Formats: sequence, structure tokens, C-alpha cells
Amino acid sequence: MDHSPALMTDMYEYTMLDACLQDGTANRKCVFEVYTRHLPAGRRYGVVAGTGRILDALENFHLDDEDLRFLADRKVVSRQTIKWLENLHFSGSIKGYREGEMFFPNSPILQVEGTFGECTLLETLVLSILNYDSAVASAASRMVSAAKDRPCMDMGGRRTNEWSAVAAARAAVIGGFQGTANLLAAQMYGLKAIGTAAHCFTLVHDDERSAFASQIAALGKNTTLLVDTYNIEEAVKTAVEVAGPELGGVRIDSGDLASLAQRVRNQLDALGATNTRITVTNDLDEYALAALQSAPVDSYGVGTMLVTGSGAPTCAMVYKLTEREGADGEMQPVAKKSKDKASVPGRKLAYRSYEYGLADVEHVISGSEEQLAAYQPAEGWKDLLVDYVDHGEIDSQYQGHDAITAAHEYRAKALSELPITAQSLMKGEPAISTDITVL
Amino acid sequence: MDHSPALMTDMYEYTMLDACLQDGTANRKCVFEVYTRHLPAGRRYGVVAGTGRILDALENFHLDDEDLRFLADRKVVSRQTIKWLENLHFSGSIKGYREGEMFFPNSPILQVEGTFGECTLLETLVLSILNYDSAVASAASRMVSAAKDRPCMDMGGRRTNEWSAVAAARAAVIGGFQGTANLLAAQMYGLKAIGTAAHCFTLVHDDERSAFASQIAALGKNTTLLVDTYNIEEAVKTAVEVAGPELGGVRIDSGDLASLAQRVRNQLDALGATNTRITVTNDLDEYALAALQSAPVDSYGVGTMLVTGSGAPTCAMVYKLTEREGADGEMQPVAKKSKDKASVPGRKLAYRSYEYGLADVEHVISGSEEQLAAYQPAEGWKDLLVDYVDHGEIDSQYQGHDAITAAHEYRAKALSELPITAQSLMKGEPAISTDITVL
Repeated sequence: MDHSPALMTDMYEYTMLDACLQDGTANRKCVFEVYTRHLPAGRRYGVVAGTGRILDALENFHLDDEDLRFLADRKVVSRQTIKWLENLHFSGSIKGYREGEMFFPNSPILQVEGTFGECTLLETLVLSILNYDSAVASAASRMVSAAKDRPCMDMGGRRTNEWSAVAAARAAVIGGFQGTANLLAAQMYGLKAIGTAAHCFTLVHDDERSAFASQIAALGKNTTLLVDTYNIEEAVKTAVEVAGPELGGVRIDSGDLASLAQRVRNQLDALGATNTRITVTNDLDEYALAALQSAPVDSYGVGTMLVTGSGAPTCAMVYKLTEREGADGEMQPVAKKSKDKASVPGRKLAYRSYEYGLADVEHVISGSEEQLAAYQPAEGWKDLLVDYVDHGEIDSQYQGHDAITAAHEYRAKALSELPITAQSLMKGEPAISTDITVL
Repeated sequence: MDHSPALMTDMYEYTMLDACLQDGTANRKCVFEVYTRHLPAGRRYGVVAGTGRILDALENFHLDDEDLRFLADRKVVSRQTIKWLENLHFSGSIKGYREGEMFFPNSPILQVEGTFGECTLLETLVLSILNYDSAVASAASRMVSAAKDRPCMDMGGRRTNEWSAVAAARAAVIGGFQGTANLLAAQMYGLKAIGTAAHCFTLVHDDERSAFASQIAALGKNTTLLVDTYNIEEAVKTAVEVAGPELGGVRIDSGDLASLAQRVRNQLDALGATNTRITVTNDLDEYALAALQSAPVDSYGVGTMLVTGSGAPTCAMVYKLTEREGADGEMQPVAKKSKDKASVPGRKLAYRSYEYGLADVEHVISGSEEQLAAYQPAEGWKDLLVDYVDHGEIDSQYQGHDAITAAHEYRAKALSELPITAQSLMKGEPAISTDITVL
């Protein structure tokens, strides 16, 4: 199970390295940029997630003997390149948007600076992580808005790859979720874990009453009982008989959730279980959550639509060379000119300006290192870039549990500073426009 | 990086185990079934993939001291359950559809038999793997049909989670693809790896000519040159000048691929490079591939739409208890009755019948172990179930590279035996109907 992230890579990163080591360009200084040309159709903003995981992967981004033998045996690269790879270590610098930050088309979400060789090898992994994690965080953020103040919990692990499930749990919390059903995510990232029982638990017992009694004996009266295996009304009656009015909660996982929640709430109240909470789960997405706002629900479990990005399972982020050293040793802005895929050359700064406390424009400034160093943003513009890696040194404040908590809080604040249109579920333009200045 | 698949699990699997160990039901014999209630809207069939990966995970499905400490510290389970978990080992049996087999609504894709305790813990992981891998294989199969005899290659790793990328490469090959750009997938599963260069390779050089010359020096004349960084016509001219007419291939990654391929083919032929192959890549899906059938293209690189299941990034597979031992020691069929989620109780057999060599009906037979043992299928019915695990013993023929090759070949044959409607890209009903018999 122990595999290097340095092989989580498209082969062409290695063949390019091989050719560039032979002709000397592998040592040219470069700036690569991660950005997206567009948000998913109709989305108002995206939420950055995954950068902390990139830093984790960077710490292990080297090849062991078996990996090197594989690259040699398959003739992916030459002998000389194998030598170079034995000492693979990223010594460059990375800056970018915070996790939990909103992004828009052309936002320079990550900028990676180093030699062509070391930067190129990172492309696939950086994109895999940012594209998936940001897709989940972006969907999560819309769901949390639609759920208003009610907590949303990730229960989607079973509907995506087993490792995606772990990344999705982390990204969901960055996007505003409160916790996850996924234990490995809880272990790796210190997230709150939730969950009590499934239908099979009721079915393996001889009747619902003995199942409920067993669960309460093991997990206490504050547990949540699943009440829709047979007949919901019967189950709620049995639940309160077994647990008493101190019953923690009930969960409904099928049917018309709003009307069922209403009936169950009334029944619970009539039985004196006025503090018993109602959780609903069943193919929820942001639209379903918005429709449930007036139903007496206390919390949501969201699965499939969370981990698949609610219709946008990936972002369209790309990793493009924007500046590189030329034969003369001078840094030069570069960009491809492919039809519909042209990119903005040069390294970037990024700021967000505000009017009456609300964001109005994303400012992306392109220029040479000297120009950008001398650039003076207008008063009140927020600098959107933080330094993640400085000449190979990772800033650990962006890793681990605390970074996730910070990102969770940051997202809520940053979203509150966008025009309220951002929270609309109607399809439309990005919430703010992006202004690109080439110095 | 070394984490146990036994924690790639929703917390409720463990809390259910905990309660069932305390009340004794954890030792009840059970049969769980994986199936889907429906295919993605309009799809004609699905392709099973992932089962081999489940077997791999099963070999490592146990908890180390750190995992046990986590479960204890978080109070997920009681002390007694921790003891039980120290010896966690799946001793049950698993049968199911082959990888590469077609599935339909209610096909019993996997059946897991053992004690409630050991079977329950597998739920999340089994579903994560089958739901994602089968989504990718199902999309891949449609793409391969649409591409006719032209090879399709997976280049989607950057658009999905970094581990999904590895699983997607494997599933793509099961679904009919020929290879992948992903090196870790190539290493782990012995897949063919492909890839030469990206736009940044051209951009890091001072001009396109020196980039092409460098690539040919390193990778030989048989390499594929990317020709759309600046001007395609210029690039093709330069490519043949540098490599000569023996140039292996060119790749086009932007614009109107059909008309560009036609122009490039004519240009290559006029330059004498009649054997130079054309690869196209750029947000391809099965519809785009079908539209390219008359264009002079030699192979396809497919990315985003492959790894995101081409609009269906997950299958709707569920893992349901269908039979269990009662208090009297007798096995009893069970099923929940939740609205819109009712399931067919009982363990199952599955056969496919044929008329004039074409599949016409999927037969799912439910009954007791004795009834199924005595069941006689009609002549010519194909038994769809194979034994993956027998009382804890994994049949290794379903793991590793050879199993993938077998599944790749099996899919092509099984698809050819479905009515040709199966290969239609128009939305419609499943290619064959499923007949459920309860004995």
C-alpha cells in the first residue's frame, strides 16, 4: 500500500524531463500557474481546497529503488535521468490562494516556481488534488448555504473511490461541512466523525424493537435511530418507547423527506420527545436542501452529490508555464496560442477589491518579478496570495487539522463578503468579475 | 502513506458491529448483496470493474495498533469490540459478476456471505470501489464502441483524485481502453503507459524547432510531437523537417479536431509522412468520438469525461442484507420496505439467456441455499457468477495484471453478444430486461 506520489504522474512529465535534461533546459527557471478558464456552467464561484494535501504529498515526493527500477525497465527515461531522479527534491517556491478562498475564472490559484525539471514533475499530482478537492469544496459550500444554519455531514464515501472519499471529507469540511462518516478521514485529519446504524442493523435483528434496544444499550439514549426500515410511524413509536423522550435523534433515509420530517416532528412532540433531533439523508443536493428549509429538520447527511461535486465532479484547472528563463538567462513571459486555450503569460499577483464591504472585482496583475515587486495595490485591496513553500521549505501552518479549521472559517467569512448573488442557486455569471492587467 | 483499508469505512459500520457484538447478532450468518436499482439515465448497460481491487484490499483488511487506539480514543467502539477487532480477518465467501461483465438493474453484482460482523465492515469499501471503478469502465466501454477500432488511451488522471486516477486507468482498460498516461497504474497493474510531451515542453525551449529536435533526440523519431502550441501548419512542417517522414505521430489538443485532423493528414501525406499517426485529445467523450469516425485519426487520448464517468461519476450500487440467521438458527430472507428503496430478499443466482446468439434476458433467481443448490438453469443459459473468495481464501486468478487482460477481453465478447442497441448512444432502456424469480 506504500506508493510514492511521485509516480502519481502522467508519463509525459518524465519523458519531458528526460529530453530537457539532455538539452539543458531542465535547469531553466520557470513559473507554472494553476488556474481555470471557466467555472462549471452557471456557478457563481468556486472554493479552493487541496493545497494542504499538496504540501503533504510534496514531503514524500521522491522515488525509491523499486520506482527507479520501474522507470528504467520500462525505458520511460534514460540512465542519466535515473541518476538525477535519485536525488529528486523540490527546491522551488509555491504561492497561491488559501484553502477556503473563493476563486473565479483566471484566478491564479497556485503558482509554482523552480527549475523546469522539478516543476514539471508536479503537474499531474497538483492538478489531481486541486481539481477534485476544489470540486467537492465548491459543491459543499453551495449546500451549506442552502442548508442555512443546519449542520451538513459528509456521508458520501461509498459513492466515490475509497481515497477520494477521504479527500472529499476533508474538502467538505473546508467547504463548510461539520463532519464526516469516513473514519480514515477522521483519523488522518482530526475531523469529527458521525454515524450510528444502517438498515441492515434493524434487519439482522428479529424485530425493530430489539434492534433499537440493542443500539441504545451500546450507544446510549443520545444515539440516532434509523426509522424507515419498515413503517416510519411504528418505528418512531417504538423508538420513544424503548429510549424514552431523551432519545437523541431519528434518521429518515427515504420518501418525501419534508413531509415525513413534519409528521415525525409532530409525532415526537406528541410523545414528549421534543428535544429528539431529526436527521434526513437521501440523495440530497443543494436544491433539495433549499427545498427543505421550512421542514423541521435538524441536520443533513449528504452523500453522492457531495462527493461528485453536484454535477461538476472536477474543476477545469490547468497547470501552465507562464514564464521561463531563455537562452540568454533572462526570464521571459510565455503562453501557448492554441485555439480556445490561449493563456495569459507572466507571473501574477492577485487582489480582491471591496465596495461598502462587499467584494466587487478580482484583480489579476501580470508582470515581471521586478514589476510585481514594485507594484502597489490600491488601499483596501486584499492580497489573495500566501506563501506555501519557500525554496523547498514548506510552511506547516497550511497542513494538518488546524489548517482545515482555519480554511473552514475562512470560507464562511470570504463568502459573506461576496455579493449575495454568490449564494444564488440560479445559473448565472461569476459573482464578481476578474480584471486582468498586464504590466 | 500506509493506511489500512479497514478504516476506509463509514463509522456506522463499527458502531453497528459494537452493538451486535454486545447482543450476539454479530455472529449471525448473513448474505449481503451489491446491486443497483437503476442504470444512469438512458444508459443501456453497465460494465463491472473493481472486484479485483476489492480482493487486494481484503488481503490488507485489518487494523494495526494505531488504528485500534484511534477507535478506542474516539470511543467509536467499546473495549470488548477492540479485542474482537485485533483478530479481524474475513473468513466468509464472496461470489459475483466477472470484471468486464455487463450489468443491469437488479443484477447481483456481488454477494458477500459470512457473519454479520465481518460482512458489515466491508460495506463502505466494497461500494466505494465498485461504484467508482464501474462508473469509469461503463463510460470507457461506450467510448471504445464509439471509437470503433481506434485505440483509446486514458489521459484523465489530472481531472480526478490522485488515487482515483490509478483506479480509473485500471477500470478504463477493463472497459476496453488500451493504456494509460498514469505511471503508478502502469506500475501497480502492469498496464501499457503512454505519453510524450505537453505544451510547456515547447514553451520552455526558445522555439518550436529546438523543442522538436530535443524530443526526437531523446525519444527517437517514432515519438509523437504536439503540434498546436502556436500554429499547427507551421508545426507540422517543422516536425517533418526535423524528424523526416519517419516521424511516429503528431498530437492535436485544441480546436475543431475533425477538420484539423483532415488538414494535418493531407499535409503529412504531401510531405511524404504517410505513416505518421495522428492522435487527438481535447475533452473527448463518446459523442465526440462518434463524430470523429470519418476523420483521419489514428488514436484518441481521453481525459475528463472518462475519469468522471461521462456524466455518471458513480453508479448507484448499494450493499443490502438479503438473508440472515434468525434467533432459531434458521436462515431467513430479509428486505427493507423503505419507500422507493425496497429490495428483493434472499440470496441469488444469475444467468443470461440467448436467442440466435444474442442475449435476451438477465435471469435473477432468489431462494434459499437449498433451493438454489437444486436449481437447474435452462440449456444455454450462461452462469454469471464466479467464486472470488471461498471461506476466506481468495482466488488469485481474479487479481493482478492477467485478470485485467482477461476482463478486457471478456468485455469485448460480452458486449458483442448483446443486442446492437446496447451500443447506441441514444438514451433508452437497458439493452436486455431482467427477470426476477423468487423460488
